[in-house]
Amino acid sequence: MDFLSNFLSDFVAQLQSPTLGFLIGGMVIAALGSQLEIPDAICKFIVFMLLIKIGLSGGIAIRNANLTEMILPAAFAVIMGILIVFIGLYTFARLPKVRVVDALATAGLFGAVSGSTMAAALTQLEEQKINYEPWAAALYPFMDIPALVTAIVLASLYLSKRRRNQYLKDEAYLGKNEYLSEQAGGYPGITAQGYPSDAPAKRVQIWPIVKESLQGSALSALLLGLFLGLLTQPESVYKSFYDPLFRGLLSILMLIMGMEAWSRIGELRKVAQWYAVYAVVAPIIHGFIAFGLGMIAHYTTGFSLGGVVILAVIASSSSDISGPPTLRAGIPSANPSAYIGASTAIGTPVAIGLGIPLYIGLAQTLAGG
Amino acid sequence: MDFLSNFLSDFVAQLQSPTLGFLIGGMVIAALGSQLEIPDAICKFIVFMLLIKIGLSGGIAIRNANLTEMILPAAFAVIMGILIVFIGLYTFARLPKVRVVDALATAGLFGAVSGSTMAAALTQLEEQKINYEPWAAALYPFMDIPALVTAIVLASLYLSKRRRNQYLKDEAYLGKNEYLSEQAGGYPGITAQGYPSDAPAKRVQIWPIVKESLQGSALSALLLGLFLGLLTQPESVYKSFYDPLFRGLLSILMLIMGMEAWSRIGELRKVAQWYAVYAVVAPIIHGFIAFGLGMIAHYTTGFSLGGVVILAVIASSSSDISGPPTLRAGIPSANPSAYIGASTAIGTPVAIGLGIPLYIGLAQTLAGG
Amino acid sequence: MDFLSNFLSDFVAQLQSPTLGFLIGGMVIAALGSQLEIPDAICKFIVFMLLIKIGLSGGIAIRNANLTEMILPAAFAVIMGILIVFIGLYTFARLPKVRVVDALATAGLFGAVSGSTMAAALTQLEEQKINYEPWAAALYPFMDIPALVTAIVLASLYLSKRRRNQYLKDEAYLGKNEYLSEQAGGYPGITAQGYPSDAPAKRVQIWPIVKESLQGSALSALLLGLFLGLLTQPESVYKSFYDPLFRGLLSILMLIMGMEAWSRIGELRKVAQWYAVYAVVAPIIHGFIAFGLGMIAHYTTGFSLGGVVILAVIASSSSDISGPPTLRAGIPSANPSAYIGASTAIGTPVAIGLGIPLYIGLAQTLAGG
Repeated sequence: MDFLSNFLSDFVAQLQSPTLGFLIGGMVIAALGSQLEIPDAICKFIVFMLLIKIGLSGGIAIRNANLTEMILPAAFAVIMGILIVFIGLYTFARLPKVRVVDALATAGLFGAVSGSTMAAALTQLEEQKINYEPWAAALYPFMDIPALVTAIVLASLYLSKRRRNQYLKDEAYLGKNEYLSEQAGGYPGITAQGYPSDAPAKRVQIWPIVKESLQGSALSALLLGLFLGLLTQPESVYKSFYDPLFRGLLSILMLIMGMEAWSRIGELRKVAQWYAVYAVVAPIIHGFIAFGLGMIAHYTTGFSLGGVVILAVIASSSSDISGPPTLRAGIPSANPSAYIGASTAIGTPVAIGLGIPLYIGLAQTLAGG
Repeated sequence: MDFLSNFLSDFVAQLQSPTLGFLIGGMVIAALGSQLEIPDAICKFIVFMLLIKIGLSGGIAIRNANLTEMILPAAFAVIMGILIVFIGLYTFARLPKVRVVDALATAGLFGAVSGSTMAAALTQLEEQKINYEPWAAALYPFMDIPALVTAIVLASLYLSKRRRNQYLKDEAYLGKNEYLSEQAGGYPGITAQGYPSDAPAKRVQIWPIVKESLQGSALSALLLGLFLGLLTQPESVYKSFYDPLFRGLLSILMLIMGMEAWSRIGELRKVAQWYAVYAVVAPIIHGFIAFGLGMIAHYTTGFSLGGVVILAVIASSSSDISGPPTLRAGIPSANPSAYIGASTAIGTPVAIGLGIPLYIGLAQTLAGG
Repeated sequence: MDFLSNFLSDFVAQLQSPTLGFLIGGMVIAALGSQLEIPDAICKFIVFMLLIKIGLSGGIAIRNANLTEMILPAAFAVIMGILIVFIGLYTFARLPKVRVVDALATAGLFGAVSGSTMAAALTQLEEQKINYEPWAAALYPFMDIPALVTAIVLASLYLSKRRRNQYLKDEAYLGKNEYLSEQAGGYPGITAQGYPSDAPAKRVQIWPIVKESLQGSALSALLLGLFLGLLTQPESVYKSFYDPLFRGLLSILMLIMGMEAWSRIGELRKVAQWYAVYAVVAPIIHGFIAFGLGMIAHYTTGFSLGGVVILAVIASSSSDISGPPTLRAGIPSANPSAYIGASTAIGTPVAIGLGIPLYIGLAQTLAGG
């Protein structure tokens, strides 16, 4: 009962947060036929500002962290970020009628990290007087950025594979209708220009697609910010500009995504239950796997139990901040009503209301044992 | 004499304020042939930012107010906001050569509320130790937003009526010249496509035009902000983003409006005296009507005399902040040099220098009597 | 040795500063084939924001300064700003293979003032307990703005002269081929429309080109800001909006300029050594000339020796802040990798590490003598 009432109050607070409030606001005005428009140039710029800020904050956090001491937990964080997306690909994406790009975007969001969920965990660890390494909070970019990069790259690979299969089907179709299409003026010839004639027989080339994803505007802004944060001293502009503008610009992007989402909400009618199941189950499972990895670091390098809880909580959390702008730019064909709805409305309350007390309780049991 | 010198110092301070300074700056550089341009996408975004901020601040103020206690004064504020625009429509708009859309925009601006004029009144009430309800300052959105909505809707109705009349005249004209126009290749047929053939005989449909005004980008941003402020908790983004950027973005919009106004300032040559008369007389009259309504609330529900003064002052004030962006987007055909000039250069000094002492003196006389 | 280590630590700090960090970041992502784009509307708006801020801060500084007392040093500052550009035109621009517009842009940047170099000098004067007038820091806009205006106007004059010469050559060429071109359908007549037939015989008209430069978007934003700062009270929007956003917007512009610069860095291969020589020698020479002018003011009007040092340091400094946006908008054909590289990577460390100790030492020698 206590869990349920906590969950419900977290749920209502999420609905009233600027993130979800502006998203719903955008959906409502789109439903009412508003002619409000945010010019495309502004949209692109907002996404750029958000991504470079996410990269910068990750880079600054890593630069200020004690890398030698945190190397194993950081490696586990990277592994968790990538693993969560692959788990999503091999379970959630296989559910009936769930679109693969939507599932990958959702898994990317659940792999990415929510700063506010992590902050809630830090507060409770302090209240319970459980020690943790001061650099443990700097683990988040090691999970956040790999998860988003993996989701975008896998989505690009999937879409490219699907286009190739489509081409092979078209080929077969054209074979049957060769006579007709030749009469129609050389259609096969035109197609062949688009698809190099030696391609169909081979596998999809992975590296060109990964390279293209990394060169795309989403990941290059994110990685540029990361390297600027790591290698230069951007603290002055970060604190005076990128950080203070972040939440406001995010609220505008949420409004835009709400307006965009409205037209696609119908797609979810038949699959909404799967999103609900994933958003309840996935955070808990991700947290347990990360807790297990953390225990390995605990026994081998003396990583504190508080740090293990933090690793579990950031794996359990799903990003309502860094994820949406990155995924909107990186996987434009994914449906934002699917991934943001699942993460913000269900995933975050589950991680905060169920995950945090679970992992703290587990750590206390292990410490006492 | 004292009034005159106060008025003049207020007038000079207004000329040097960023609002009027950037407006005049824009006019000067347009006059000097500057090629400075603010891209259209930026313009639209600035207007959006300003409108959503105005809505948010109104919504937050109403949410934090004690609605049951303030219901009668709030209703009077709404009535005053609408009434001021109708007074403008039936007096000012009828003056010779005054354009109706300009008059409606000006009346909308005089119906809207100036936060700084209200702040000046609150300071003086405190100096004079006149009590007022702490929620009285939250009356402003109840007058501000209805005035702007009424002005935009009435302007849409007027323009739509004028288009219909133009069509009827064209019809009559075409009747006389039917032979010619039929020779010219079916001109009536083309016209008939634009205007449904059953329309001319009926009255203008009011609801579709009101709906269209509300769906327009200006009012939908304003109302979106209002409802987000009322129903969600946007305080964090409001305080970190929308509010601090407001005055700066407004200064840029003023610059743009100054450049736009320069090309249209000639239109005002023959009517400038009417704007001056309206800008001196209207604030005082609006204040007296609101003072009377406030006294009704004073005798029926015990609304304080300080509150009555505040209601009178917000009716007397004219908006130099919320009005210009709303009206520029909502009534694009109105001439900004007319409405902003009248409000900022004359209306505001009159409301501050003459209105405030007048209503405070009246309240003190009534309290003493 | 001490100088060299100081220089190197200044050099590394410059490379890590947001200004140069974002510039290099932009070059790197362009080299890696990133598809990141900042929309053109955003670019134009960022440049506008930066220029109006530079103008405003100059105007506010001049308004708050004691003009009667500072008239001679201010006049010397204006003279230095203009002189530095002319020195660049008659020395640097004549070096083999150095493009004239690049040389003018570089000289404009070295004539403009670096606020952080000036701040470093003020700190050291205080440490050495050398007195200076409190208004001495307000000398900077008197040198900064004239230098940038002179560079832009001279570049326009140069380009216009070159176009005229090109036309004369074309004329001569056409003379030889008159028969052919007349057969080709009146080509000379078409050309004559572009160039008034009486122009070639006369000198280039200076005033129309100066006027056009002043009406261009770069200088009109700069001068608008200057006059708004001088004549109105824009402090509230300056402090809440233009000033806090400045460094962040500059970092984005630097990123854009880095991406643009990448494609043009090859141009510098054969002339990089001249830029390096200019960037080492010019700051020291400019500082000595300004020191000499300052000493004239010292002996005639009692301008303090500390003030003389400040005048020398601002002449020695080169702008990494006000210059790049102004020159990018005002001399779009100049190569930003040339002028920013020379100024930020070499000129600034030289002015701080070599110039400041030199002029302070000189002032102490003169004070002791």
